[in-house]
Amino acid sequence: MPRTGLPEPISRLIEELSKLPGIGEKNATRLAFHIFRSSEAYARSLSSAIIRTKSDVSTCSTCFNFTEKDPCAICSDPSRDPQVLCVVEEPLDLLAIERSGEFRGKYHVLHGVISPLEGVGPEDLRIKELITRARHENIREIIVATGTNVEGEATAVYLSRTIKPLGIKTSRIAYGIPVGGDIEFIDELTLGKALRDRKEM
Amino acid sequence: MPRTGLPEPISRLIEELSKLPGIGEKNATRLAFHIFRSSEAYARSLSSAIIRTKSDVSTCSTCFNFTEKDPCAICSDPSRDPQVLCVVEEPLDLLAIERSGEFRGKYHVLHGVISPLEGVGPEDLRIKELITRARHENIREIIVATGTNVEGEATAVYLSRTIKPLGIKTSRIAYGIPVGGDIEFIDELTLGKALRDRKEM
Repeated sequence: MPRTGLPEPISRLIEELSKLPGIGEKNATRLAFHIFRSSEAYARSLSSAIIRTKSDVSTCSTCFNFTEKDPCAICSDPSRDPQVLCVVEEPLDLLAIERSGEFRGKYHVLHGVISPLEGVGPEDLRIKELITRARHENIREIIVATGTNVEGEATAVYLSRTIKPLGIKTSRIAYGIPVGGDIEFIDELTLGKALRDRKEM
Repeated sequence: MPRTGLPEPISRLIEELSKLPGIGEKNATRLAFHIFRSSEAYARSLSSAIIRTKSDVSTCSTCFNFTEKDPCAICSDPSRDPQVLCVVEEPLDLLAIERSGEFRGKYHVLHGVISPLEGVGPEDLRIKELITRARHENIREIIVATGTNVEGEATAVYLSRTIKPLGIKTSRIAYGIPVGGDIEFIDELTLGKALRDRKEM
């Protein structure tokens, strides 16, 4: 509605920006006005970054991580253990695990989680490809590192039910008290889980 | 921080998107991933909308409304009263007033409000140009239609103090109960103002 009467290029920009997730029309209008008032250099730079993201980046055909060449650097690294796969929701999760320095196996990026509420089923994720890898690569263990919310849990359960029958060990990353966490401030669910999952010292 | 390890085009896109107002790095990352996963057609269309907004839209050199040609359609409309100017903060305010169908004069768009907290002073707005118009065009009345928040009020006061000495009538749009508004649900400030500004029937 507020678009009527704006020059066509601005109202088209508002329309395109409104298609982005979480950007309503009001927000899109604010962004479009900002872009109009920014420097020519910024507009050119933003616009070319969008195009380059589409043209120069793809997903690795093996693990589906973002990459500029296929297979990606991790999949083609001979020093990494090809028998252990860590399954993550998103490329950023993979990067976080890499930063921990604790994992030297390979990855599989699902690009989302099963979420019936948002209409995301197993067929919308890279699960079929994970099963194919599980069947054809010589894999010893699959570590499921999806999130600890309801969708992440449901996805983990679905994966373990699908993978276990293939005779592959399936594990889930551990829940517990964050390192450095003060016990009195930890929520009861986490604390309960940390107690149940205690390890002998 | 989450950028390390992402392909360069994606991390550049995240960086460019983070420069937009209200878009933090986390949000920018989500948007960049979304753009990566969108169709080529959407990326091309978004990117060209950005470029076209910068190249094909300018502000009218008289009233500073957004326009594709200069002077804009309103400034060059001979049927409109050139002696009454309505001063607004943003082009969207102008459009809202046009939709009301109640105004047949011309406009002046400030492109913001005076806001010391955000470092916006009179010199950052199109106020100098408004004074020039007030001095040199044959203007009978200037209606200040800035917002009713603190900044909008302060800007209105500043304008009236600057314009009145030039011998031009300055008015402020009326505050009051929204048309169709239920009195019991109106906030006390608005109701108080509506009572003080009552008109004889």
